[in-house]
Amino acid sequence: MSDELERIFSSASLMTTPHRGRLSARAIGEAQCVKSWLKTGIVTSLEGTFENIDLVLVWIYQICQAIWSSRIYQTRSEVGSGLVYPVPSLPLILHAHATGPNPYKVAAVLEALDLPYKVKVWTFASDSHGVKGSEFLAINPNGRVPALHDPNTNITSWESMACINYLLRNYDTDNKLGASNEAGRVEIDQWTSFLISTMGPMIGQCNWFRHYNAVKNDDAYKRYEAQAYRCFVVLENQLKSHEGGWVIAGENHSVVDLHFEPWIRQCGYAGLSLDEYPKVKSWLERVQGLPEIVKAYEMVKAGEEV
Amino acid sequence: MSDELERIFSSASLMTTPHRGRLSARAIGEAQCVKSWLKTGIVTSLEGTFENIDLVLVWIYQICQAIWSSRIYQTRSEVGSGLVYPVPSLPLILHAHATGPNPYKVAAVLEALDLPYKVKVWTFASDSHGVKGSEFLAINPNGRVPALHDPNTNITSWESMACINYLLRNYDTDNKLGASNEAGRVEIDQWTSFLISTMGPMIGQCNWFRHYNAVKNDDAYKRYEAQAYRCFVVLENQLKSHEGGWVIAGENHSVVDLHFEPWIRQCGYAGLSLDEYPKVKSWLERVQGLPEIVKAYEMVKAGEEV
Repeated sequence: MSDELERIFSSASLMTTPHRGRLSARAIGEAQCVKSWLKTGIVTSLEGTFENIDLVLVWIYQICQAIWSSRIYQTRSEVGSGLVYPVPSLPLILHAHATGPNPYKVAAVLEALDLPYKVKVWTFASDSHGVKGSEFLAINPNGRVPALHDPNTNITSWESMACINYLLRNYDTDNKLGASNEAGRVEIDQWTSFLISTMGPMIGQCNWFRHYNAVKNDDAYKRYEAQAYRCFVVLENQLKSHEGGWVIAGENHSVVDLHFEPWIRQCGYAGLSLDEYPKVKSWLERVQGLPEIVKAYEMVKAGEEV
Repeated sequence: MSDELERIFSSASLMTTPHRGRLSARAIGEAQCVKSWLKTGIVTSLEGTFENIDLVLVWIYQICQAIWSSRIYQTRSEVGSGLVYPVPSLPLILHAHATGPNPYKVAAVLEALDLPYKVKVWTFASDSHGVKGSEFLAINPNGRVPALHDPNTNITSWESMACINYLLRNYDTDNKLGASNEAGRVEIDQWTSFLISTMGPMIGQCNWFRHYNAVKNDDAYKRYEAQAYRCFVVLENQLKSHEGGWVIAGENHSVVDLHFEPWIRQCGYAGLSLDEYPKVKSWLERVQGLPEIVKAYEMVKAGEEV
């Protein structure tokens, strides 16, 4: 059943152009329905079939609406582009634990896009409850959270960036968190990469040498403290470079702010102070007031233990 | 001039669907040409204008071909999808230095996509030749190579992943290095993220404590050696998990292999051995035989000093 519905959606998407599509949702639905009837032999020719075309079209439209309202896909109110897009009705599964920053990013995106999801909380153990056990390694061979399973598409992703990009491609078609032009896509990619490949790892190493290393290692901590502060300078300068209140210039926040928040929030734990980075400090307060951030922390902390 | 040509390409792309487009390149060209004539007032109505329609269409087609052959865009032989796509005629500028791994990734993608480019080699200094000088910081506020400028679109990107994603979105429309379905896009994102956020940084820290740290710090080196080897286990298992010869299952290599190569190549310098990772070892030999990898190293090493 789900395969057939997915095929209809796939076929319908092939009727549409990425921008300025002039086909109404109704016309797309009608065409897909007739196509399906022709394919399955319910009708064999269009000639003479529709004596009263308007009545038939209303009927077709109602059937399509019924399909779209069914278990797998529901219609959302039509967005600016004039196209409908799918909303998952089965909750996505976010694999998480409560102590690391990355699962919160994915929860924040799920919240921002108003998607249904459940949180499963794993331990760090090697047994069936932990991210080093064979059950979890079958989900993510790297043995780290987050991972995200979408039962509506049967696709599983791991690494927070991959989970988030999956959500944006599939459920943020009006670019609430993403960019609508190429320059914007580049900005999102480069700041996301700066966070996940440089700033996040450097703050993470501060955490390690401050809390977890078996011996005191001031030399290593000092290195990562300096590297992390270098990143704070880059972020402070970026926030100074434009009038907007978010990492990327513009009126609204983007997915980049949701990538950064859980890492900058950790700065105290990492032994880092924001006192010399007033723009970062006020940005952090601003982003922590976003409803999706508030709710993401509640959801992950209330997640169900595996 | 370039703006107008870009607008024509943009408008033409809006006529096409992502898959199974039935419009021929000729039909797209004709429609765009007529649209442009209507817009500029060269023709004011289609009625009566075309007395001899075939002759006019041939003429329109020739004009479109002339436009496509002009300075900014050239037609490439039509690809599988039946669509034409732009090839930049102005060389892209890759900002690089020869000693770090990340610029090579971008050069390899430029080579794989057969794009024209020039390499500018920066030092690590704070003057006008170096990545810490104001000239380079205007290109990338993070003060790191690679950065990539495309004079055909006037877009600059920094962070190797952002540069590479820009190239794939704009110049790899037949997915030579990318994925053509959602599951494939997720695989590319998660392995790219694993490399740039975990494996690369851990190998990088081995390099630091083996070569650059002011004092000998065995405790820190041992931590990163263990972390890097943990990543080699993950990569070895991934290569074992399927029959293909590349990181992601399938007949052909993907952009992921080009992300990994410059980092795995460094393992000796980082003090790491591949002896216990035979799949990684044979993968490295295979990927180092790719023409785009061979050429990328030649090009960056022969780059012009700033």
